[in-house]
Amino acid sequence: MNQTSPSPQLWYLDDLFVGQQFSHGSYLMEPERIKSFAAEFDPQPFHLDEQAGRDSVFRGLAASGWHTAAATMRLLVTGGLPLAGGLVGLGAEVSWARPTRAGDQLTVNSEILEIKPSRSKPSQGVITVRSITLNQHGEQLQVLTSRVLVFRRPDSSFEANPGAQ
Amino acid sequence: MNQTSPSPQLWYLDDLFVGQQFSHGSYLMEPERIKSFAAEFDPQPFHLDEQAGRDSVFRGLAASGWHTAAATMRLLVTGGLPLAGGLVGLGAEVSWARPTRAGDQLTVNSEILEIKPSRSKPSQGVITVRSITLNQHGEQLQVLTSRVLVFRRPDSSFEANPGAQ
Repeated sequence: MNQTSPSPQLWYLDDLFVGQQFSHGSYLMEPERIKSFAAEFDPQPFHLDEQAGRDSVFRGLAASGWHTAAATMRLLVTGGLPLAGGLVGLGAEVSWARPTRAGDQLTVNSEILEIKPSRSKPSQGVITVRSITLNQHGEQLQVLTSRVLVFRRPDSSFEANPGAQ
Repeated sequence: MNQTSPSPQLWYLDDLFVGQQFSHGSYLMEPERIKSFAAEFDPQPFHLDEQAGRDSVFRGLAASGWHTAAATMRLLVTGGLPLAGGLVGLGAEVSWARPTRAGDQLTVNSEILEIKPSRSKPSQGVITVRSITLNQHGEQLQVLTSRVLVFRRPDSSFEANPGAQ
């Protein structure tokens, strides 16, 4: 894991700060998986066939945006956003700046934008995280801004100590 | 197709109006597909295993929100939002009101919220569409608000006539 925070571990609300960054990669977008994902969930010619892609606004085979979003989620869950209690999203905003292509190697850089401890549930909070999905050329494919449930460290009546697990 | 607009056809920018509604269903969330989707894209215990789901904030096996989003896209593409030129999303806001469960039958109701003809490209425009995903009990699972590219009817220098194809 290539993480700008000090060490690989699971993070509680107590350990998070605005501006904190996480990154993780990579995920290969295989051409056959682009087509089979599209056949199941987004069966449009430009996601299913190279020639149809070239004839479309995408000017080439393009992955479904929902495939890029799902691959991004995989990178977040498998290390890109290591939250204790898992990654429970309440909602998200997603935008696709350019198409994801067959053979693209995805990486995701995330940054915490906001932290809101819950007033009604002291053990919980909601963070807003921006996750930018890049291809191997460093081009932005997708910007995802998620609201994610986070939990306080169970012993956080004691002083928070992010180093201790 | 159960469509509140007059007849099944493909819609151009010229044919659309704010408040226009489309609906289409249904999609069955199979338990095994919930788990295999999660194993590939969102490998968290509460999406993979009934008992782990019961022990989690979801209080039961829950589909990944990205699986619900992908299934919603399938319903939109296969008739729920019949746009000429296909469904090309520029971005979207998604929120999950409650978990999608194994055995849920999804339907989607969509409504056009805004229509913006392009100033620079007279043949195009962008619409904002709200798509509500419901289960078989009529409970809202997901609200998706998408910005979608739309095209003018190729002969739209003539008077628009949505009835003629």
